[in-house]
Amino acid sequence: MEGDPISKLCTPAMVVDVDIVKRNAQRMVDRYQDLGVKLRPHMKTHKTLECGDIMTGGSRRCVVVSTLAEASFYADHGFDDILYAYPLPFDKLERCAALSERLSLFQVLLDHPQALELLSKRPLRAGRPWHVWLKLDCGNGRAGVLHSEPEALQLAQAIAKTEGVELTGVYAHCGNSYHCKGVEKIQAVAQETTTLTLQFMEKLRAVGINCKSSIGSTPSCSHPIKDMGQLSEVHPGNYVFYDVQQSLIGSCSMEDVAVRVLTRVIGHCPHRNQLLVDCGWAALSQDGAGRLPSGYAVIEGHPDLKLLSMTQEHGRVEPITGELDYSKYPLGSLLKLVPYHSCATAMMHSVYHVHSGGRLVGKWFPTRGW
Amino acid sequence: MEGDPISKLCTPAMVVDVDIVKRNAQRMVDRYQDLGVKLRPHMKTHKTLECGDIMTGGSRRCVVVSTLAEASFYADHGFDDILYAYPLPFDKLERCAALSERLSLFQVLLDHPQALELLSKRPLRAGRPWHVWLKLDCGNGRAGVLHSEPEALQLAQAIAKTEGVELTGVYAHCGNSYHCKGVEKIQAVAQETTTLTLQFMEKLRAVGINCKSSIGSTPSCSHPIKDMGQLSEVHPGNYVFYDVQQSLIGSCSMEDVAVRVLTRVIGHCPHRNQLLVDCGWAALSQDGAGRLPSGYAVIEGHPDLKLLSMTQEHGRVEPITGELDYSKYPLGSLLKLVPYHSCATAMMHSVYHVHSGGRLVGKWFPTRGW
Repeated sequence: MEGDPISKLCTPAMVVDVDIVKRNAQRMVDRYQDLGVKLRPHMKTHKTLECGDIMTGGSRRCVVVSTLAEASFYADHGFDDILYAYPLPFDKLERCAALSERLSLFQVLLDHPQALELLSKRPLRAGRPWHVWLKLDCGNGRAGVLHSEPEALQLAQAIAKTEGVELTGVYAHCGNSYHCKGVEKIQAVAQETTTLTLQFMEKLRAVGINCKSSIGSTPSCSHPIKDMGQLSEVHPGNYVFYDVQQSLIGSCSMEDVAVRVLTRVIGHCPHRNQLLVDCGWAALSQDGAGRLPSGYAVIEGHPDLKLLSMTQEHGRVEPITGELDYSKYPLGSLLKLVPYHSCATAMMHSVYHVHSGGRLVGKWFPTRGW
Repeated sequence: MEGDPISKLCTPAMVVDVDIVKRNAQRMVDRYQDLGVKLRPHMKTHKTLECGDIMTGGSRRCVVVSTLAEASFYADHGFDDILYAYPLPFDKLERCAALSERLSLFQVLLDHPQALELLSKRPLRAGRPWHVWLKLDCGNGRAGVLHSEPEALQLAQAIAKTEGVELTGVYAHCGNSYHCKGVEKIQAVAQETTTLTLQFMEKLRAVGINCKSSIGSTPSCSHPIKDMGQLSEVHPGNYVFYDVQQSLIGSCSMEDVAVRVLTRVIGHCPHRNQLLVDCGWAALSQDGAGRLPSGYAVIEGHPDLKLLSMTQEHGRVEPITGELDYSKYPLGSLLKLVPYHSCATAMMHSVYHVHSGGRLVGKWFPTRGW
């Protein structure tokens, strides 16, 4: 019920601190207004309308999504200027065409000539062009055509030349920033990705092509370097929630993490020196396994405790050293888990309980599927 | 669309072979009819009505669930004789009471005197008793009062004596069978759990208490030992889908695994000797990390391939040895991933696509939450 303290919730439950969400969102807005770069926030972490509203300042314009289900969900609720930043899926061409024909601005992404061929064989109605971003791999090692390969420039030129298709921009994801520790290393990755992207933009201009450029990842966008001011757009997403992983990378402090999984003590096991809690991987995900001294999460206010292991609906908690003082953890008492990876934790929940100062203010319902 | 081949589905998608599901379910039914033991199938793996119907032979009676959300979902759809096999949650007492007062037979479980005290303070209406199972830990090391502790017998006696509460049975989960390899070791765990449970039942009879007994886990219930014939019930769940983990434990063969995640090739990365596929952990879960030579899953028909790593929506596939022959995996081509842990994979999907012989026959929609 609205107004109730979060401690009234049945557990496990994911709670979102809306004040921290708004602060994280505003900081990112301010950062890129100062740099003169357009912020295109990514929806993939939360997949909700409400959080999309906060990230876009209520405009419902200029967002990026990771699935076509998200694209349709946002389009159905008045969002527009949506970039579906995923290698053009051969099985979903018609769904992409429908969104392109329906929205003012639906944008797709590709990294292969075969994908371009598909688009050229399916012209959009009413003379509309396909708005296409070229995905460039600037060292992340996932999707994208390698920046150093001649095929990259060739593909950009082919997109620009193809009838019914428009080269909207060049898109690079610096997911390799997730391997960093500390601002200096994050900024080194940001610099590398930015430099390689800008060099590629120069090559394009040399052959007469002008289009947008965009890079992104929460670590790099949380600590922009000066050259990022030369980009057209950035596209971070996780920053609205942040998480333990981001704090360890150096993107944020633990005070910036907006999400918790609430769990209750459901068992005392003195013969094992353990507590049982009602949060298993069904509520937290298995992300972060083996990465933290405190196990699968940070247990807020209890740096001496470790979430040792989980099954579907149970978690085993033990002290990092020494004997557990059970009097501090009566059955039914509440613990707050700070997730290692909020994208993964959010995926496990069909409702997020939103609070301000510990009092419930509403519920957000994410979309799911593909 | 019904009748279409599964290859028409947009990917990633979880598909369920209904013929294998029915065969797995029937074998378990036959096994326990032969032994004269009641089968109480667990719903936690699939959480759907349709699969619950198959497992109960259409009776919609005698099931076990892991969350109160499942209990409510099944109750809302005509299921009854539902056991909520989870340590009695202090925050959900009123919801448990409501189900107890509404169904013919709603059963709860506890492992602590404080939980019993809660029940006694909340008598059910119309003179109904709380139907209570005592959770016994026979070596699994999760929830339950330790079989060897005097507190176990004391708690059983306290339940039996408490007004408004009935001791329905003793419940042990032999989840330690998941550490086994091969039928012999599974049966050793099954024997140990059964023996300890039956010894406890004898202690109860010695103090004048007669009630039911139940043990369960898919490995042990797939290879019952003779003494299990002396139990009242068994409560396996995963067997209806099975998975790679179960085949490695020795519960089943790979032919018995009913679920796949369909994924498509979305990228060729010859500079890394890798393919990209459109299945990340959002569609498969992160269960099984590091457990298989083939990575996070078995890629059906391609024993030479490994699902090396995943991010939210991408998977990286590489050959276990040698160079990838890209001509065998054109962009857009379909791969079938056999999940390491079907409970974890199913949790990632809000719809299961059901097929018979590769032709779609319907969709199942699981319930979620707590």
